[in-house]
Amino acid sequence: MADMMKRVVLAARPDGAPTTDNFRLEDAPMPEPGPGEFLVRVLWLSLDPYMRGRMDESKSYAKPVPIGGAMEGGTVGQVVASNNDRFAPGDFVLTHSGWCSHAVSDGKGVRKLDPDLAPVQTALGVLGMPGMTAYVGLHEHGRPNSGETLVVGAASGAVGSVVGQLAKIAGLRVVGVAGGVQKCAYVVDALGFDACIDHRAAPDVEALRAQLAEACPDGVDIYYENVGGKTLEAVIGLMNPFGRIPVCGTIAWYDLGGLGQGAVEGPNTLPRVWRAILVNRLAVRGFIVWDHADRFKEFLTEVSGHIRNGRLKYRETVAEGLENAPDAFLSLLKGGNFGKQLVKVADM
Amino acid sequence: MADMMKRVVLAARPDGAPTTDNFRLEDAPMPEPGPGEFLVRVLWLSLDPYMRGRMDESKSYAKPVPIGGAMEGGTVGQVVASNNDRFAPGDFVLTHSGWCSHAVSDGKGVRKLDPDLAPVQTALGVLGMPGMTAYVGLHEHGRPNSGETLVVGAASGAVGSVVGQLAKIAGLRVVGVAGGVQKCAYVVDALGFDACIDHRAAPDVEALRAQLAEACPDGVDIYYENVGGKTLEAVIGLMNPFGRIPVCGTIAWYDLGGLGQGAVEGPNTLPRVWRAILVNRLAVRGFIVWDHADRFKEFLTEVSGHIRNGRLKYRETVAEGLENAPDAFLSLLKGGNFGKQLVKVADM
Repeated sequence: MADMMKRVVLAARPDGAPTTDNFRLEDAPMPEPGPGEFLVRVLWLSLDPYMRGRMDESKSYAKPVPIGGAMEGGTVGQVVASNNDRFAPGDFVLTHSGWCSHAVSDGKGVRKLDPDLAPVQTALGVLGMPGMTAYVGLHEHGRPNSGETLVVGAASGAVGSVVGQLAKIAGLRVVGVAGGVQKCAYVVDALGFDACIDHRAAPDVEALRAQLAEACPDGVDIYYENVGGKTLEAVIGLMNPFGRIPVCGTIAWYDLGGLGQGAVEGPNTLPRVWRAILVNRLAVRGFIVWDHADRFKEFLTEVSGHIRNGRLKYRETVAEGLENAPDAFLSLLKGGNFGKQLVKVADM
Repeated sequence: MADMMKRVVLAARPDGAPTTDNFRLEDAPMPEPGPGEFLVRVLWLSLDPYMRGRMDESKSYAKPVPIGGAMEGGTVGQVVASNNDRFAPGDFVLTHSGWCSHAVSDGKGVRKLDPDLAPVQTALGVLGMPGMTAYVGLHEHGRPNSGETLVVGAASGAVGSVVGQLAKIAGLRVVGVAGGVQKCAYVVDALGFDACIDHRAAPDVEALRAQLAEACPDGVDIYYENVGGKTLEAVIGLMNPFGRIPVCGTIAWYDLGGLGQGAVEGPNTLPRVWRAILVNRLAVRGFIVWDHADRFKEFLTEVSGHIRNGRLKYRETVAEGLENAPDAFLSLLKGGNFGKQLVKVADM
């Protein structure tokens, strides 16, 4: 066992869009597992948009990462030493170890993974938090009915891709929004969405709305909200009466100081959105994936079944080495990833 | 029977806040009831914020009033001549005759009123559409639990006053927002709210938020939205996790061109509101009273019971004569009414 481990810490809080200066790679003493604890060697680190929130100081549903503290994050690793009867060296585990090469755990909230059932890193993506976010947001708050139309942003991403494919399986017309010709082609050709609009090719909200309107001839019944910004403003006027808007994220607004809690330069589109909610009797519902933890087993059974029978596909973008996590994360925030963004921290 | 009737028509669509120039009082030939029809002499006209919406051309949940057409509105009248077996001269009826002295009806959607049960004009207020709006918004979408805190704007108005009193009966802490010292005193002293904030005395959103925070030491579980604007922006940051926001109107924004469907001068507070929905997992739900028409009898039984036993109070502001309807309506939009705004069109 090496005497030192590596980790990426929050060097400074971002002012607007984060940069590499907000992170610092450092060495730290290798932690020792105490009684009932075990040491994990991290193999895979998940990068997710919610981490942007942890970099700010403002109130959210979770505490911010302290300055100098390791960045948070879901990880898949292997037990290398254990004082815990439930976990033996060699076991593959899903932990929340953060941007680190090694970590100690007492086993609380840790799930063992069977590498024969699915590639272990899928526990961070399609069979983990992003997939579960897609599943519960769609089913709990989207309440899909066959024949309806769903729109989802970041359609090639870890959440959007699963939302759209589950909605197709449920018999909906599904229209994605994604950034770039290549992603849109993938969303339609590989994932089977009915259409995908390239928001980078739409010069403004009106242009995006016009393209969405054409792709949604019967209006929009569910807008699965994971982006905010231009996509929300374009789709809100297309919602059908009694439409549903599950809200799991607003990545387009994450850099607006205080996680979008501050007001930003106008025009103020709040009246337009609020009026649409009233006139069309929309149900807008914020949610966080673990509010619905009781549905995890059901999700795992259903989605792993769809993967096995080929009805649900996923894609990964892999950065090699913990030292490349900051760049990969900054790229993710700008839509540079294609599918689930992972960091391969060590070889199995 | 006179040969002529009076009516108030929409003379021109408003550009921003409406003025008296948007209305015209005119004489018209007295209508004659055809087969199966009856003639109603209007006694009371209801004035309600939703009528502002009908003056604009933009899409809403109902068609706009055409230029030169009589303004729409709920009315209580008396049958004066009838070719309909169900309605006899002398019957009191709830109709939707608009801003008119007389109207013909075929009886569809018309409800007979018993003047011995309650003053007939209450069918336009506390026992009619505004009361029902309060009732279904609170119970269907607010889902109140004893011990929770509710905030409602326009707290002395026809809807807000009923929302707050029903919430008090349900065991909630109730905080109103109203315009002026006199209304706030009435809301607390006569209606029994726990507190009422005078939004006219708050110079900005931050000041209003600070006063609301003080009045809601345990945060806000239900914000019954009937005003929008400054009140919404002040309360959104005080919402508790899993809070509910039923939306029945946004009177503060009704003059923003196209019923608030156009964007307005910044700053843009949509990101702040959307983020609060996500972080606190809020349920925002637009609704229109007649989506829940099936609950009307239950509402009538419950609320008329509360009125009879003195647990629920109401107040009316009465303008005399149809010719004064435009001024009374403009005053209503600026908060000049105190309780339910009515026009006494004719004596009983």
